[in-house]
Amino acid sequence: MALETDDVRYLRELCGGDGLRGPGDDAALVEVKRGQVLVTIDPVIEGVHYESGTSATRIGRKLVNRSFSDLAAMGAWPVAVVASLSFGNGWPRAARRRMYRAMRDAIERYEASWVGGDVGAAGAASVFTLCALGEPLGKRPVPRSGMRPGDALFVTGPLGGSFASGRHLDFEPRLEVARRLVADHAPVAMIDVSDGLTLDLSRMLEASGGHGATLCESALPRHRGATLEQALHEGEDHELLFSVRPSHRERVERDPELPRSCRASIGRVEAEPGLRLEGRDGRTRDMPVRGFDHVLE
Amino acid sequence: MALETDDVRYLRELCGGDGLRGPGDDAALVEVKRGQVLVTIDPVIEGVHYESGTSATRIGRKLVNRSFSDLAAMGAWPVAVVASLSFGNGWPRAARRRMYRAMRDAIERYEASWVGGDVGAAGAASVFTLCALGEPLGKRPVPRSGMRPGDALFVTGPLGGSFASGRHLDFEPRLEVARRLVADHAPVAMIDVSDGLTLDLSRMLEASGGHGATLCESALPRHRGATLEQALHEGEDHELLFSVRPSHRERVERDPELPRSCRASIGRVEAEPGLRLEGRDGRTRDMPVRGFDHVLE
Repeated sequence: MALETDDVRYLRELCGGDGLRGPGDDAALVEVKRGQVLVTIDPVIEGVHYESGTSATRIGRKLVNRSFSDLAAMGAWPVAVVASLSFGNGWPRAARRRMYRAMRDAIERYEASWVGGDVGAAGAASVFTLCALGEPLGKRPVPRSGMRPGDALFVTGPLGGSFASGRHLDFEPRLEVARRLVADHAPVAMIDVSDGLTLDLSRMLEASGGHGATLCESALPRHRGATLEQALHEGEDHELLFSVRPSHRERVERDPELPRSCRASIGRVEAEPGLRLEGRDGRTRDMPVRGFDHVLE
Repeated sequence: MALETDDVRYLRELCGGDGLRGPGDDAALVEVKRGQVLVTIDPVIEGVHYESGTSATRIGRKLVNRSFSDLAAMGAWPVAVVASLSFGNGWPRAARRRMYRAMRDAIERYEASWVGGDVGAAGAASVFTLCALGEPLGKRPVPRSGMRPGDALFVTGPLGGSFASGRHLDFEPRLEVARRLVADHAPVAMIDVSDGLTLDLSRMLEASGGHGATLCESALPRHRGATLEQALHEGEDHELLFSVRPSHRERVERDPELPRSCRASIGRVEAEPGLRLEGRDGRTRDMPVRGFDHVLE
């Protein structure tokens, strides 16, 4: 963690800490209550996750909130963050400081701490990587693998059109909703919809032992202007997709503290593999699995 | 943590785990015994930390060992690792797999686990970022800030010539030595020499309240062929620089289990700010602070 002198001083003032807990030592000390830490790491790369010209504030916010959304999806709350920020061309000091402040604000919004990391110069393109540490909100984290046939599926908000609208930069992680779910609704499997509903759902079903699911078109919440295709297959919505046992379904649908999108289950887990969509005409058809999945050659 | 399907399957087989602990969920669960976690994040960037053409095995090993060296410098032992690997051009599947195996070997050498992360395509240049979690070997981590005038300074191995020799890619983190030090020698301040002895020492002295130090040329261990200049100012040696109270000095110098370089203290902490070098002629002169310190404009 060799930190650039001037930026590091700025960060130390921005984030506080005593040197061990705040930026400034070889590693940062984080204390967790029950010895269970959830850890996630995510990059935000120029040209891949954002186009050059995107504001420093939006980049910084997305960098933090992507990882916080991963923690929410585990039923966990963020405690601490370390970040490795490699700046490419076109990042004068003022822009770097705007990014640092946006990150600090996004981190402190959930009472977590920015405890350390590394800033430096990259090649041409910027690469920012953030690692977030969290604690489970319940006794155990919520995996993506806990589904059983009969489970009711829910999503915490409308889907589709995240890229076109710029929401993929400005979303809020669903931490408060995750807290409510863990406290009152016993979610058995959860994921954040980052690569597309059908792709992320199929990953949950595969991790749960190879089940299938039928989604209900009329219950599927969509953003204004988003097509059904977009709601099913686009990524970066960062809403939580979760399942509860059939006996818990009505309780979720009746909780006024949960987002509106939870007032109707969007589908159910089934023993038969594959994904199906029940259309507005009442007919059920097979549904392809598509989404955002880089392929390395 | 969107993971590329084929590489992720390979990693899951390579690293094991049950989906929560191993790669495959939104975040990985790590258990720590006493609720204290040390966390460090470091990038390895093509063109900055290695030249293109460097073998996948050496890159993977360096990526792990840099962070493990940071944990050693805190008096901590690695428990778990997450990594974000963004591959630029020229990384066919076989090379990626060689890198994964080198990382897995370096991680498991110290009985830590690779629990999660992210692999994907970058722009032209590769950026690899690793975050390591560790536990303190003693009751508390060893900061860089615990120095007092009178403390005796030690270094765990010879310095200088790391870049020219390629050692900066192949070093071993001094975890075993850190374990011995914490168990038997009460180090009060410790750092790994990554940016150069004078620069890293000056950071420790500054963090400790603005002290100074005098180093002794004849006691300073150098690699064969390395000049005094290189030993003082070059980076990437990754030896541990530490201090003990004066009463502990002889005990360190007489411990046959410690590296040979610890048989003589290399200098002492003093109240007077600045760095000085006591030459072989017995004269003491002021010494500039130089080392590896990127400057962001």
